[in-house]
Amino acid sequence: MDPLSPRVTRAAVWTGTGVDIRSVAIPELREGETLVRVRLATVCGSDLHTVRGRRTAPCPSVLGHEAVGDVLAAGPHAPVAVGQRVVWSVTVGCGDCPRCRSGRTAKCLSVRKIGHEPFDGDWPLSGAYAEHVVLPAGGCVVAVPAGLPDAVAAPAACATATVMAALEPAGDLAGRRVLVCGAGMLGVTAAAACADAGAAVSITDVDARRVELARCFGGAPDHGGPVDVAVDFSGSSAAVGDALARLDVGGILVLAGSVMPSPPVPVDPETVVRRWLTVTGVHNYEPRHLHAAIDFLNRTRHTYPWASVVADPIPFDAVADALTSAPAGKLRASVAP
Amino acid sequence: MDPLSPRVTRAAVWTGTGVDIRSVAIPELREGETLVRVRLATVCGSDLHTVRGRRTAPCPSVLGHEAVGDVLAAGPHAPVAVGQRVVWSVTVGCGDCPRCRSGRTAKCLSVRKIGHEPFDGDWPLSGAYAEHVVLPAGGCVVAVPAGLPDAVAAPAACATATVMAALEPAGDLAGRRVLVCGAGMLGVTAAAACADAGAAVSITDVDARRVELARCFGGAPDHGGPVDVAVDFSGSSAAVGDALARLDVGGILVLAGSVMPSPPVPVDPETVVRRWLTVTGVHNYEPRHLHAAIDFLNRTRHTYPWASVVADPIPFDAVADALTSAPAGKLRASVAP
Repeated sequence: MDPLSPRVTRAAVWTGTGVDIRSVAIPELREGETLVRVRLATVCGSDLHTVRGRRTAPCPSVLGHEAVGDVLAAGPHAPVAVGQRVVWSVTVGCGDCPRCRSGRTAKCLSVRKIGHEPFDGDWPLSGAYAEHVVLPAGGCVVAVPAGLPDAVAAPAACATATVMAALEPAGDLAGRRVLVCGAGMLGVTAAAACADAGAAVSITDVDARRVELARCFGGAPDHGGPVDVAVDFSGSSAAVGDALARLDVGGILVLAGSVMPSPPVPVDPETVVRRWLTVTGVHNYEPRHLHAAIDFLNRTRHTYPWASVVADPIPFDAVADALTSAPAGKLRASVAP
Repeated sequence: MDPLSPRVTRAAVWTGTGVDIRSVAIPELREGETLVRVRLATVCGSDLHTVRGRRTAPCPSVLGHEAVGDVLAAGPHAPVAVGQRVVWSVTVGCGDCPRCRSGRTAKCLSVRKIGHEPFDGDWPLSGAYAEHVVLPAGGCVVAVPAGLPDAVAAPAACATATVMAALEPAGDLAGRRVLVCGAGMLGVTAAAACADAGAAVSITDVDARRVELARCFGGAPDHGGPVDVAVDFSGSSAAVGDALARLDVGGILVLAGSVMPSPPVPVDPETVVRRWLTVTGVHNYEPRHLHAAIDFLNRTRHTYPWASVVADPIPFDAVADALTSAPAGKLRASVAP
């Protein structure tokens, strides 16, 4: 390792009852690994769920999987160069199991995930709520274009890339009527992506202020009626059922928000057949979606007010505050180590 | 019209209580229309449902939508030449409405269907249980290759083409595990098409003899376990639910059999999301699927015993017999006007 690289870093370790800032030794980099100094991490809602006990996760662990950082050091054959400003994908596949070989690396049989690994395991520095993160071999790392602010680029690694994956099954959106359910970070990003692709976008949320905010991202308040495409980020079974009932002939409903237990949705098979309907689920994303996310954010950086929905960064020592509640009027908290 | 063309034909008119063989005047052909002399019609299960009152349909009408015939006369700009042996698609779209323009001619807002139109309307000779049928402008007509027997080609227009449409959403089937639910004409055809494409095919049916018959079409009796693709032709909500539960990560369930009311299938949205599952419905088909059907039957005519599942033709005057019950040990009755 470069003698100028740090040997010790500080990481926010989630203990199950709170967050401890601890000093952690930085390991020697192995083949394909990269050491990144975190510039800014945004706080995905799933981390809030983890901290509130609504979602099981390894514990203790370093959370955080939406971030931008600078490459400080790279092991042999790492996919990036020292000095690059980068984002990195949440999931790391083995590249060799049947699922990886079939193109679903996010569902690798031995998948490892940024910000989801045990602190006491062989990859303690997996999360972005730390001054440094170690990116393992085989992960996808994408350079961030100059001029794209950290606060805009950070959500690429979860929210934006997942939206890219969720819209993929719908195909060409030009001229189509799209319903987006849920106007959180993913919902407004989807609205923007669909509007950018030429769709007529309406959006729903239980929070009217979020629907109002979505106007700036190409989403109009929803007034009912048939749609060609519906994308759910709400995770509400009622919303999913309502969206399914709104599909016109040949319509597609993409489920992306149902990542916690919820009541079953009754589906009438005759309606699915006679109306050529499709229901499809998307979870996490593939490397191509992270590339598409950065391209999309960069291309639309003057079209949509991306930076406005991310709160000003909280100092690293106060990271616990960012994990207890979402910031008022914003869609993401952020932390700057 | 060619002076040698007949002016009168005989058609089997379903009256709601029975079938009357009636003499019917053959109209002057209009732009794009074709007069076909029916060589052989096979009896689709949906006609049996209609006759048994399990399915509403215009009445009186001439049923029959799986057939082979010879082109006797063609109006100006008809898509075929006199003398050709042909099959023709069930649905005829207007070509101009939003659904036709979006590529879903089978769901045309003013769709007309072979063998489904009122006898007392403006297209009395719509069905194939007749000596002659008039094909309207805008329909898809496909020439039958020499050497492909009538009994093998006739099901192309419904069973085989619908199977081609049902398998399209599953993409490349090579090396994939496919479950086919229902071993009737569509199920065994799907088994054959999947096996031909390199899939490992298992098949289920409430009738063990049909499962046995499906062996000759590439389908092995099902023994459970995960699958990549499931295709339902049974229309049973229980079978649909079971098939959904069998899907491996990234799996797709195609519904094609649910064309009558059946109980809703409870779908767990979290499973759909986390396992990247897809459920999609297919009803009828597009012109490309009729072309694919004839190509497939012709290419596999020595691979699978297609003719063996079609009963010897019943004479036209006894067509009522073919509409009351399926022939023992066969998947299709047939009628030769």
